[in-house]
Amino acid sequence: MTVEDQPPQLPKLAVIAREAGVSVATVSKALNGRSDVSAHTRRLVAEVLERRGYPRQRVRPARGSMVDVMLQALDSPYALAILGGVEDAAWRAGVDLVVSAVCDRTRHGQPPPAWLDRIGARDSAGVLLVRTSPTAAQRAWLADRGIPAVIVDPRRKPPSGLPAVASANRDGARAATEHLIALGHSRIAVVAGRPGVPCATERLAGYRQAMAAAGLRADPRWEVCGYFQQGDALRATRRLLASLPHPPTAVLACSDSMAVGVYQALGEHGLRVPDDVSVVGFDDSWAAAHVAPALTTVRQPWPELGAAALTALLTDGAPARIELPTELVIRLSTAPPRPS
Amino acid sequence: MTVEDQPPQLPKLAVIAREAGVSVATVSKALNGRSDVSAHTRRLVAEVLERRGYPRQRVRPARGSMVDVMLQALDSPYALAILGGVEDAAWRAGVDLVVSAVCDRTRHGQPPPAWLDRIGARDSAGVLLVRTSPTAAQRAWLADRGIPAVIVDPRRKPPSGLPAVASANRDGARAATEHLIALGHSRIAVVAGRPGVPCATERLAGYRQAMAAAGLRADPRWEVCGYFQQGDALRATRRLLASLPHPPTAVLACSDSMAVGVYQALGEHGLRVPDDVSVVGFDDSWAAAHVAPALTTVRQPWPELGAAALTALLTDGAPARIELPTELVIRLSTAPPRPS
Repeated sequence: MTVEDQPPQLPKLAVIAREAGVSVATVSKALNGRSDVSAHTRRLVAEVLERRGYPRQRVRPARGSMVDVMLQALDSPYALAILGGVEDAAWRAGVDLVVSAVCDRTRHGQPPPAWLDRIGARDSAGVLLVRTSPTAAQRAWLADRGIPAVIVDPRRKPPSGLPAVASANRDGARAATEHLIALGHSRIAVVAGRPGVPCATERLAGYRQAMAAAGLRADPRWEVCGYFQQGDALRATRRLLASLPHPPTAVLACSDSMAVGVYQALGEHGLRVPDDVSVVGFDDSWAAAHVAPALTTVRQPWPELGAAALTALLTDGAPARIELPTELVIRLSTAPPRPS
Repeated sequence: MTVEDQPPQLPKLAVIAREAGVSVATVSKALNGRSDVSAHTRRLVAEVLERRGYPRQRVRPARGSMVDVMLQALDSPYALAILGGVEDAAWRAGVDLVVSAVCDRTRHGQPPPAWLDRIGARDSAGVLLVRTSPTAAQRAWLADRGIPAVIVDPRRKPPSGLPAVASANRDGARAATEHLIALGHSRIAVVAGRPGVPCATERLAGYRQAMAAAGLRADPRWEVCGYFQQGDALRATRRLLASLPHPPTAVLACSDSMAVGVYQALGEHGLRVPDDVSVVGFDDSWAAAHVAPALTTVRQPWPELGAAALTALLTDGAPARIELPTELVIRLSTAPPRPS
């Protein structure tokens, strides 16, 4: 073995401790990149290592100090609230958060190839994907390296083996529908989200469950699709009102932005909320409290979803699926139906 | 010199290239952590280095691959829009973005001490501070290590030597006031932001400049303070209306949320917007387009501020202050005054 081939040896902890003038426990913490070691102490330890020819980089924290979060986009209050929850949990766990977004950088809405290059170059402890999911090749790459991944609020069925964290969408929609039923409504329409998106499917199922449990026959004409868009919900509600001999007395909109579209369509037909038609949304976005009348809606626990996902990522044997409870927030858009 | 003291030598690039079966240019790129080298190639190079006893960590990108952004909080559309701009610029520059927030983790609203430990442990290429600023000790720490810092949208006077990126707040408020003057208003009140915050001071100065330039005497009673809060703006406008024999015919609110408070106070007094009183906001937040009537306001270029700050951080000899232009967005809340 030549000199060049000789890998440098880490001096004994006791030796480093003596030379740095600190305890063995402190040396151990410094070498493990713990955040409860001061920069000054870290430097003392690094200097000893440097004097003894041990490469400086080894004192940097290795895998375990950094987590990646890849968001579909950084453009919605939901993305911000989820990110806030992730950041808080990362702070408490003592890991750094590397943030990036898909935006429109790929045509398929999945993370761009260069992302993995970057992750590989710095030994990420794990990746959170918010409203996006890795391609099959990216999944295989991560699995090869033992880098765990968790999906938050999946927009498509999560690939098997990838844990997902989401709101209890079915329960939330069921509770919203039950609220309308408890007020005395029976002609309850639903404006569903984009077909194929898991949360849209779940919310529609929750509506149907509540209707069936109350012995109400859900007329298929009462189910329209608003694709999670205000404009689509406006048009779908127009068609609904045009096609029925009697308008529904209540509408469950499966997102707050679609509820705004429902408000518009009802307004066009001279129907008042909640006097003529009650409306419930889903999300409890900023808009919900600020539209007139203020919207009764289902609150999603966005920061809690982010925090739970980060915790699951850093925990061995995390469950394959985590659902967090929603909360019905009753405001001014729901009331008993007019006596007929 | 003993074997232990011998620092490992980097083999010649040509040797690595031959053994890895790639070009010398590719080896150089891989060693510099460039993102246009595939993970596979990077691994080939790393394997050669490992075989030759060169410590594995040296192939990781060193300083220059990672930038820190510390936000005051992750709770506003502004924070999100700035972060989006930073993320996009970071992506284009090929650097990773480590995101954290002050939140309520320190009493003084400045980054917590542990932050620097983390930055030091991974050789950050620079730090962006959004609506927060480092303590004197943190500034000294960064300066010692030659880690550059840039402040975005400062909430207090930036410490000298720290470049700041902000909207052209004075110009924006002047343009808003000139818009009201051009419509025929002369009794124009202003609801200012929190005293001492640079953007609040600048906007108030812009209002005064426009009034003076038009030869209008700005009555000091027309200047009230809303502290950038909707509730404070509501109360300040109530006091304004109660104290004047004739209400102003127009109000410049120095933030959109304060404009909402102005709307409320005017509504309480039976004054309609814009028939009785015109209102201009500042920010062009989500609310501006959604309040009734839709708010004329000054659009701040949030993503552009974030991108400019990231670019300044990565550029040697960046200017000490960067101001980006605002844009007046005319909606339905401004109209000529009633003929008297």
